Amino acid sequence: MPAIPFSTPFFVLQPRFNYHITPIFRSLSLHLSSSPFTFNVNSSSVRLHCALPQAAETESPSGGRSGALSPRPPVTGDVKKIDVNPPKGTRDFPPEDMRLRNWLFNNFKEVSRLYGFEEVDFPVLESEALFTRKAGEEIKDQLYCFEDRGNRRVALRPELTPSLARLVIQKGKSVSLPLKWFTVGQCWRYERMTRGRRREHYQWNMDIIGVPGVMAEAELISSIVTFFKRIGITESDVGFKVSSRKVLQEVLKSYSIPENMFGKVCVIIDKIEKIPVDEIKKELKVVGLSQEAVQDLLQVLSVKSLTELEERLGGSGEAIADLKQLFSLAEKFGYSKWLQFDASVVRGLAYYTGVVFEGFDREGKLRAICGGGRYDHLFSTFGAEDIPACGFGFGDAVIVELLREKGLLPELGQQIDNLVCALDEELQGYAATAANMLREKGQSVDLVLESKPLKWVFKRAARTNAERLILVGKSEWQRGMVGVKVLSTGEQYEVKLDDLN
Amino acid sequence: MPAIPFSTPFFVLQPRFNYHITPIFRSLSLHLSSSPFTFNVNSSSVRLHCALPQAAETESPSGGRSGALSPRPPVTGDVKKIDVNPPKGTRDFPPEDMRLRNWLFNNFKEVSRLYGFEEVDFPVLESEALFTRKAGEEIKDQLYCFEDRGNRRVALRPELTPSLARLVIQKGKSVSLPLKWFTVGQCWRYERMTRGRRREHYQWNMDIIGVPGVMAEAELISSIVTFFKRIGITESDVGFKVSSRKVLQEVLKSYSIPENMFGKVCVIIDKIEKIPVDEIKKELKVVGLSQEAVQDLLQVLSVKSLTELEERLGGSGEAIADLKQLFSLAEKFGYSKWLQFDASVVRGLAYYTGVVFEGFDREGKLRAICGGGRYDHLFSTFGAEDIPACGFGFGDAVIVELLREKGLLPELGQQIDNLVCALDEELQGYAATAANMLREKGQSVDLVLESKPLKWVFKRAARTNAERLILVGKSEWQRGMVGVKVLSTGEQYEVKLDDLN
Repeated sequence: MPAIPFSTPFFVLQPRFNYHITPIFRSLSLHLSSSPFTFNVNSSSVRLHCALPQAAETESPSGGRSGALSPRPPVTGDVKKIDVNPPKGTRDFPPEDMRLRNWLFNNFKEVSRLYGFEEVDFPVLESEALFTRKAGEEIKDQLYCFEDRGNRRVALRPELTPSLARLVIQKGKSVSLPLKWFTVGQCWRYERMTRGRRREHYQWNMDIIGVPGVMAEAELISSIVTFFKRIGITESDVGFKVSSRKVLQEVLKSYSIPENMFGKVCVIIDKIEKIPVDEIKKELKVVGLSQEAVQDLLQVLSVKSLTELEERLGGSGEAIADLKQLFSLAEKFGYSKWLQFDASVVRGLAYYTGVVFEGFDREGKLRAICGGGRYDHLFSTFGAEDIPACGFGFGDAVIVELLREKGLLPELGQQIDNLVCALDEELQGYAATAANMLREKGQSVDLVLESKPLKWVFKRAARTNAERLILVGKSEWQRGMVGVKVLSTGEQYEVKLDDLN
Repeated sequence: MPAIPFSTPFFVLQPRFNYHITPIFRSLSLHLSSSPFTFNVNSSSVRLHCALPQAAETESPSGGRSGALSPRPPVTGDVKKIDVNPPKGTRDFPPEDMRLRNWLFNNFKEVSRLYGFEEVDFPVLESEALFTRKAGEEIKDQLYCFEDRGNRRVALRPELTPSLARLVIQKGKSVSLPLKWFTVGQCWRYERMTRGRRREHYQWNMDIIGVPGVMAEAELISSIVTFFKRIGITESDVGFKVSSRKVLQEVLKSYSIPENMFGKVCVIIDKIEKIPVDEIKKELKVVGLSQEAVQDLLQVLSVKSLTELEERLGGSGEAIADLKQLFSLAEKFGYSKWLQFDASVVRGLAYYTGVVFEGFDREGKLRAICGGGRYDHLFSTFGAEDIPACGFGFGDAVIVELLREKGLLPELGQQIDNLVCALDEELQGYAATAANMLREKGQSVDLVLESKPLKWVFKRAARTNAERLILVGKSEWQRGMVGVKVLSTGEQYEVKLDDLN
């Protein structure tokens, strides 16, 4: 998909919500053939009746070939054909996609472990009130909400941070700060009109609750860098744009804009690369900014160096101090080459208050890979005392796109230590005995559960990448032996059952 | 909870849906103190304003004690206090509960790997039509369904098998049989009136698609036995009741009951231990069984030995042959002591057709721990060709109850290899350097992100079970050294930064 940049202005994007956005003209067939995370583009087009009769053709009652079954007549009468696709915008994870998902999630989890974060989770279904902020965020407009059978307003969570804040407030003084929590969870959104955009994705979140200084942000960015390095992504592939919401805050303060307008202004400004500047200006005027203030804001947003920013804002403010410290820490952490200041980064969520950052691909083809920042005032919007906090969200879609672009997607086949097979139907129980002996020693066993010809068995062993074939034959069994064939070398030998390991 | 057996007839139970059912008189406080999987009994009773002021009391601006923060004034004005609890019937997973969940799920996954099963997953949100069978199952009455914003009828999945069947049908001939698939996924149900029953649970499923013989059921039961053994459960704690739906089928056939009544009859009979027998009789008559047929059915259900069953049904039927073979295989697999025949086991899902089984605690205190069976005709109810299949569901609730009863719940504390701390604020960057060196070597590091007194650092190290404390001091750093304290022994030494591992 090199020709069509994902950052095309046709799409208004939710920064902390890394959906896989697919232009309409990207065809279904391309998806099905190339995407390990495939999804359903048009759920009504593929129907069961074209899938299964094909399967039946390969079946034979004698059981000679792979997966052979005697077909049964379909139930006659009023049987509706179901739609074999998952609901629009959602995904199944067949084994090949699940292996990739597990590989990705295991990397998320291992990095979180290295950084001493504890795993948490929250319900995928939350009270709608948890997400209905009034700052005009896209995330709220696309809330997957409904009324349950008890007439409660609930929503499939669009993000994880509000649930995390809820749990922190609930725990109160029973937990000691700082908390370092991570979660990998599914998030949902609902859009009516577009095709090919997913309605769910998984997001890796890491959050630090209780640390006021930018060491926390520096630690978060460090963990993402560690993740990138683990999966083969370098600083020539990816960088982080960093700014601070305090930059905007200082500009707004100089125009006496009330503080409660801050979130709304940030949400508008976040759209700056996605909708025309005139629209931005219009929206900023609607919320009460003067023409002069708008002009000044937009000029500040174009600043690309800290030195220039310091010239504009003066050196005494928190924005400059925070950012300088962050860049200094980045050197000690060892990832300064990944970082660049960019005043235009504000992120799309209303609750950020300080440093904000987003990971981007240097070729500029994809949307933000991840994003986060400081949200020191989120707790008070829930009626609790504020606690300094920061975190990031990292979706499962854009990173897979990037890995594919770079040819870095891992090859993850099925792996089985042993395929165990009885050579006679009456020996199947003994094959089970042998299989369970191996399993007790920690080895994985694909036990052949039917009477199958050897040709079928070899084909299955090849398909499952079995390392060894263990054959249970009558005369060998009577001598307490089984046959072993190492499939990579072709080596064949007999071994005592007790010595099998 | 020894006094109140969970199998109390007050509850109509969904067999393959292992919810944690809590009698109303089991108090909230008991739950919060003893259950590692706590949940929300009354979501409106605990409010934020009692939680956070307490937390604030422990905070001090000087940062001396654990988790110290300078409290900020709460935002004044119209800030609604949120409900800090998860929605009714759902759970948060704070770190301590998440560790138990991960331990349980990792055992599910490791056993599945030993048996050569591949992991799959499906959307938690499915089309409602996938679950609306017409056999009177409790699972359908309690469907967590709603209309989405595009007016589609959707449901949070109550079970995993229909989604699995959908995916198998979709894959058609692109997959080779037999498939051995497992999944660990969240399932939902909606109940209006009861308190303390959960609306979600996680379920481990293993399914074998494409094997017609009972070797498949024998393999499934073997995998559950392997799981029990891994977590310390023995055959004196738990057993499996085994029967076959073909037993009922043979009785119904002898009374010329039409085949399409079979599912309905099974769903009624499954309630036999939970509602009065007269109710069962009434319901069976409603669906068209004669008094004689009802009498005969109920008598067959009381049979507890295969020999007696053979005397009643004759030795030529499939029911007897399947069950005999299963018990014979159980000996070879090595778990015959776990198995017993019990004709009263039919399971509550309409789609089972052959062998059915359920795991039960021998003390009789809990509901079924897991359950499964053969469902050879599910595919045709979706309009596809039938494929022989069997599987089981294993919930995350009853097993935790059992482990607690037996004192077998694992102690799972947080574990950190290193706590790294700068002794001076200006050394924090160097502490980060040291932390990242250790992380590159695979060690987990809890990096202290603020300037804290040593007393605080030691308390945190104790709380996180850190193995070592790495202290970065000025004079040591200038010599390229850091201080190490092994917390279990108290041993203290200096080491070159490069030699730290």
